[in-house]
Amino acid sequence: MAILSDVATEALIPLAAAVGIAFAVAQWVLVSRVKLAPSSGRDKDVLVDSLIEEEEGLNDHDVVVRCAEIQCAIAEGATSFLFTEYRYVGGFMCVFAAVIFVFLGSVDGFSTQSRPCAYSEGKQCKPALFNAVFSTVSFLLGAATSVVSGFLGMKVATYANARTTLEARKGVGKAFVTAFRSGAVMGFLLASSGLLVLYVAINLFQLYYGDDWEGLFESITGYGLGGSSMALFGRVGGGIYTKAADVGADLVGKVERNIPEDDPRNPAVIADNVGDNVGDIAGMGSDLFGSYAESSCAALVVASISSFGVNHDFTGMCYPLLVSSVGIVVCLVTTLFATDFFEIKDVKQIEPALKKQLIISTALMTAGIALITWLALPAKFTIFNFGEQKEVTNWGLFLCVAIGLWAGLIIGYVTEYYTSNAYSPVQDVADACRTGAATNVIFGLALGYKSVIIPIFAIAVGIYVSFTVAAMYGIAVAALGMLSTIATGLSIDAYGPISDNAGGIAEMAGMSHRIRERTDALDAAGNTTAAIGKGFAIGSAALVSLALFGAFVSRAGVKVVDVLSPKVIIGLVSGAMLPYWFSAMTMKSVGRAALEMVEEVRRQFATIPGLMEGTGKPDYARCVKISTDASIRQMVPPGALVMLTPLVVGTLLGVHTLAGVLAGALVSGVQVAISASNTGGAWDNAKKYIEAGASEHARSLGPKGSDCHKAAVIGDTIGDPLKDTSGPSLNILIKLMAVESLVFAPFFAAHGGILFKLF
Amino acid sequence: MAILSDVATEALIPLAAAVGIAFAVAQWVLVSRVKLAPSSGRDKDVLVDSLIEEEEGLNDHDVVVRCAEIQCAIAEGATSFLFTEYRYVGGFMCVFAAVIFVFLGSVDGFSTQSRPCAYSEGKQCKPALFNAVFSTVSFLLGAATSVVSGFLGMKVATYANARTTLEARKGVGKAFVTAFRSGAVMGFLLASSGLLVLYVAINLFQLYYGDDWEGLFESITGYGLGGSSMALFGRVGGGIYTKAADVGADLVGKVERNIPEDDPRNPAVIADNVGDNVGDIAGMGSDLFGSYAESSCAALVVASISSFGVNHDFTGMCYPLLVSSVGIVVCLVTTLFATDFFEIKDVKQIEPALKKQLIISTALMTAGIALITWLALPAKFTIFNFGEQKEVTNWGLFLCVAIGLWAGLIIGYVTEYYTSNAYSPVQDVADACRTGAATNVIFGLALGYKSVIIPIFAIAVGIYVSFTVAAMYGIAVAALGMLSTIATGLSIDAYGPISDNAGGIAEMAGMSHRIRERTDALDAAGNTTAAIGKGFAIGSAALVSLALFGAFVSRAGVKVVDVLSPKVIIGLVSGAMLPYWFSAMTMKSVGRAALEMVEEVRRQFATIPGLMEGTGKPDYARCVKISTDASIRQMVPPGALVMLTPLVVGTLLGVHTLAGVLAGALVSGVQVAISASNTGGAWDNAKKYIEAGASEHARSLGPKGSDCHKAAVIGDTIGDPLKDTSGPSLNILIKLMAVESLVFAPFFAAHGGILFKLF
Repeated sequence: MAILSDVATEALIPLAAAVGIAFAVAQWVLVSRVKLAPSSGRDKDVLVDSLIEEEEGLNDHDVVVRCAEIQCAIAEGATSFLFTEYRYVGGFMCVFAAVIFVFLGSVDGFSTQSRPCAYSEGKQCKPALFNAVFSTVSFLLGAATSVVSGFLGMKVATYANARTTLEARKGVGKAFVTAFRSGAVMGFLLASSGLLVLYVAINLFQLYYGDDWEGLFESITGYGLGGSSMALFGRVGGGIYTKAADVGADLVGKVERNIPEDDPRNPAVIADNVGDNVGDIAGMGSDLFGSYAESSCAALVVASISSFGVNHDFTGMCYPLLVSSVGIVVCLVTTLFATDFFEIKDVKQIEPALKKQLIISTALMTAGIALITWLALPAKFTIFNFGEQKEVTNWGLFLCVAIGLWAGLIIGYVTEYYTSNAYSPVQDVADACRTGAATNVIFGLALGYKSVIIPIFAIAVGIYVSFTVAAMYGIAVAALGMLSTIATGLSIDAYGPISDNAGGIAEMAGMSHRIRERTDALDAAGNTTAAIGKGFAIGSAALVSLALFGAFVSRAGVKVVDVLSPKVIIGLVSGAMLPYWFSAMTMKSVGRAALEMVEEVRRQFATIPGLMEGTGKPDYARCVKISTDASIRQMVPPGALVMLTPLVVGTLLGVHTLAGVLAGALVSGVQVAISASNTGGAWDNAKKYIEAGASEHARSLGPKGSDCHKAAVIGDTIGDPLKDTSGPSLNILIKLMAVESLVFAPFFAAHGGILFKLF
Repeated sequence: MAILSDVATEALIPLAAAVGIAFAVAQWVLVSRVKLAPSSGRDKDVLVDSLIEEEEGLNDHDVVVRCAEIQCAIAEGATSFLFTEYRYVGGFMCVFAAVIFVFLGSVDGFSTQSRPCAYSEGKQCKPALFNAVFSTVSFLLGAATSVVSGFLGMKVATYANARTTLEARKGVGKAFVTAFRSGAVMGFLLASSGLLVLYVAINLFQLYYGDDWEGLFESITGYGLGGSSMALFGRVGGGIYTKAADVGADLVGKVERNIPEDDPRNPAVIADNVGDNVGDIAGMGSDLFGSYAESSCAALVVASISSFGVNHDFTGMCYPLLVSSVGIVVCLVTTLFATDFFEIKDVKQIEPALKKQLIISTALMTAGIALITWLALPAKFTIFNFGEQKEVTNWGLFLCVAIGLWAGLIIGYVTEYYTSNAYSPVQDVADACRTGAATNVIFGLALGYKSVIIPIFAIAVGIYVSFTVAAMYGIAVAALGMLSTIATGLSIDAYGPISDNAGGIAEMAGMSHRIRERTDALDAAGNTTAAIGKGFAIGSAALVSLALFGAFVSRAGVKVVDVLSPKVIIGLVSGAMLPYWFSAMTMKSVGRAALEMVEEVRRQFATIPGLMEGTGKPDYARCVKISTDASIRQMVPPGALVMLTPLVVGTLLGVHTLAGVLAGALVSGVQVAISASNTGGAWDNAKKYIEAGASEHARSLGPKGSDCHKAAVIGDTIGDPLKDTSGPSLNILIKLMAVESLVFAPFFAAHGGILFKLF
């Protein structure tokens, strides 16, 4: 048996979550020391700082007041959008919760009688009706946790942005630490609360379920569905919001009026900065929380029908949660490397410092996984593998988790290679701007397609090894391995938009050029890490959805998903089409909303007297409203497509076609998502490469406003919806359809495929 | 038994082929009546014509001489490119033929002993060594037929282009008839010679094989492989050639120098017109010939192990060839509707006339299929279905062929809806040009993604029905149904580039604006029909490769391709990545070659005195050489990727992973191909919509040279490699990998998967 006792497991998991939350609070306290109110003479810190540092304007009260005002406007816009979004989505969630209850309750005709278990022969399991009740509850719990995650992240980010700007007056190192600490607040809060809520839910559900772990973990998967459904709307809605504002602001401001980015004269500038917070922070937070919840649920549901579940080995059962617990501790140590052990003194050190975070966390985590595997797992155990039990060793399972972790690092590095302007791919794209926007776009698309190759091979090797070692459980823990350093990943991801906002606030508050240069350097590093984060999200989504797919197939009683059967092949072909359908919707939504925004910004420039001269004040609120309305309206069709497809296919065409759809969406969606994200990232950085003019070659293409630069701006604008709306939403599409199929599997197995039954 | 006797079948097939060839020759004679040499007084026809028609310049000898000169230059460029291409590819083909021989010969250790048949139990089949020999021979035969097809097509087109220009002086109707007749020469030559060569080969091979139909039709599949391999290089090489020249000519000529398309001052103009002939004519001809050869081979090889083959029912066995024979006759009648039964009097009648061709041929063909099914098939027969025999009725099989035929029509119509500027999708894209190139590109990409939906559903329904009725044989004949009207399809397809060239010649020869308007109208209709043709090609490729996939799986002895096995899933994921890898290569090739072309055109404008004023003469030959060199050099990597993938995967990872790769490439490649083709077509026609200014809305976006128009030109340029290089090459990718796997299946089954065997 395992070294770790069940009692120790019961204590360890909440302890790790508590440590994570405490760490997040501590980081928040450190960030809050930067005062946004003008400092009075009594404030020692600022006085001391002002003696040490030589920056201009450090005691300029006006600047501080202006920063506070702008921060306030951004925070208000973001809060109001999220409340509007949550109100609409909340209604939808309630309806969908009812659907879950009715569909799952009907499996056994709403009977309250116990029934024979599906996997444990000869035993009685709880009635399907109660599984329906608990699935519905955990669905709502997942959705609520996701809402809280996204909202908290947004709150932290809008709290930190102006503080980062103010710290930038004292030097790039201080600004970096503030932005990174704020990111860490979000990262640790999400990772810890996700773990804690899941753990508490399992313990509470167990009060009812007792020994029926099959039912327990089947209903717990609702948590993943809830988290992911919320994430879908968050990503799509936020993505449309942010890109409508961004594209709209750029098209009129930068291209037509030739004013700089984030210029306060641009009416869409507040909406643009709000967008960063609702899209890249709240949306991304919900997304990664969803991934985390789903991979945990996938691993738990497979484990529940393996020897851990059958023998009621609690510690073994909780292995996925223990891995996440270790992850929190490892990430905590990793964070200190960025904020305390070393100090950033030069802008050139920023990107290496962020990249070091990835390497340190991966290396430490490998040791951490080894330790917890040794402690928590018996030397040998069996795993359910489509109808039979497969023997696995603890070190075999370690290999699965570790290969997921390292595959993530490889994907991260490849993404960096293709999207950072330090390497030739992006420089080639920038160079193609010489002959205009068309060649820039052709080269950018080609780059995105090419960047798919190595990540796919990394994922394929990861799948093969973990599948061979431990079947679908191996895949699930590989996904968990990739996500085990989620706290660090989220910190880095959140750091980017915070720096972006900080730059915007510096510009709007009329701070000096040196401040803006510092925040720009923070932002540029954040661009690359954002692309890396998206790479992680997509890679883990592929593994998670494959694991969920496996769990769905098992639960639906399907033995073989044969490509040579017509039901499967039509599912495969149609499923591979879904990412295109979905992307068509989201891209067009952004395009349409951006058109509206452009009209409004043009109208304001034309009708508000003195706007260009800086004497008139733009109507920011109207642009915020346009973005809000457009995103709320436009997120419905793509959301409905994703949420309804599994229900319709499963009910009408049955589990075999649905399995084909899931497999098709998975294999095609991963490619579209990676290429879209990287193409967009590359265009963005090609533009920044020309703007920065850091090399002989870059200067030959520039400066800002040259024909080359204009071509690069066009590429960047095209990339916006690709990299921030459709690309990252696609990984939710593939995960969500899989987890939804898993939750509804009992219904589909019992009543699905009515169309084929009729004919 | 069937009504049609074996003797009648033996006579019918070559007869239909002969009729087709005779018809092609007759059309050629009609086209050749348009004289390119200046007419002397003795030439009665021209005299009479000049009395009837009122056009200016009809007897202007200079114009005729100039047209002849330009035609000569284009024909020379095209011929020299094709010879260069064939020389390189010929070498490759010989090497690959040796590979086929060695691999297939090694299956049985180069033994000359007969061995037990794979399917007919208790019978002896010919030795594997001789299968290797005959496969190699039929491979070379397929390649040679493909070369001849492409070359003849190019010859006809370069013969017809100037003649169409000259006829345009007499009216749009005459020009239309000339262009369409020339297209028909190519269409009927290809369809008939493809059928004839295949038929003769089968009869000759039978002299050796006798009763061993398994071996006979197994080695005949080499014909499909040869045709498709050649098509791959033709499409990729031709595609790079034409788009490098097109993009290069447009970027400098239209965008920088503001001179019209096809202006003789543009040094790349001859290369551009040559490109139309080597890419859109020769490449496309090889491509569709390959599709036709493969679908016939797929149907034959499945039939050979079904009751037709086992019982040696020759007429039943030849059903696929009989369908094609009927198709030739049906298309012959259909062609008369365009050229003889009605006359085009107005430019508005062109597009309807072309679309009518599709409807007429489909309607007539449905009756034709019903007739031949009734005549050639017994009421009941059995079809091999992965290890068991499935009973099928003749009317069931009719349904399969018919559903393929009609699915093709649906795909054609949807393609038209999304790419013709008569409907709202393209108009929306044009409207997005108001806010610049970026929104144009975003809307165009979204349109392409969206246009995938209905074709995929049509394909899925086609697959489901035909698979359910007659397993893989059903799919193969459905593909054949879609391709049964290939002669008409090819006529329409070839008509487009001929008209395009005719317009170019009119411009270069300095003919009046009215002539150019007429050829432009012909060309615009050709753009839409070209998109329809691509839709057909992709749809049929999906069905063909699925049928080949089924045949491969049967031949390799695989019973189940289970998505839930790690070997298959990694193949599926990696296979879905291949279209992206391939597109990255081809897009970048076009981009690079276009950059070279731009540099050269800029250099000539800068250094040749009086070029812009029309007093200096550009160096056309250098641009032709740049396109030639670039395409020959750049077609190697994508070609190698496609040709080597099945060999490497099959040998190292075995048949299960290879099956996964084929399925993945199929389901993902279809989407990429359709969206790329339609996006490109939509951008092209959005630009044409603005240029033509036929409606209030269109005029509000124009005229030529406005900001909107410039944005539209950028979109059009981006679309060029998408719609003419990577998009149409992708359908060869999916077909070719499937047919190659089928040919090498005996080797993979015997010796494949050495990597998994080692570990």
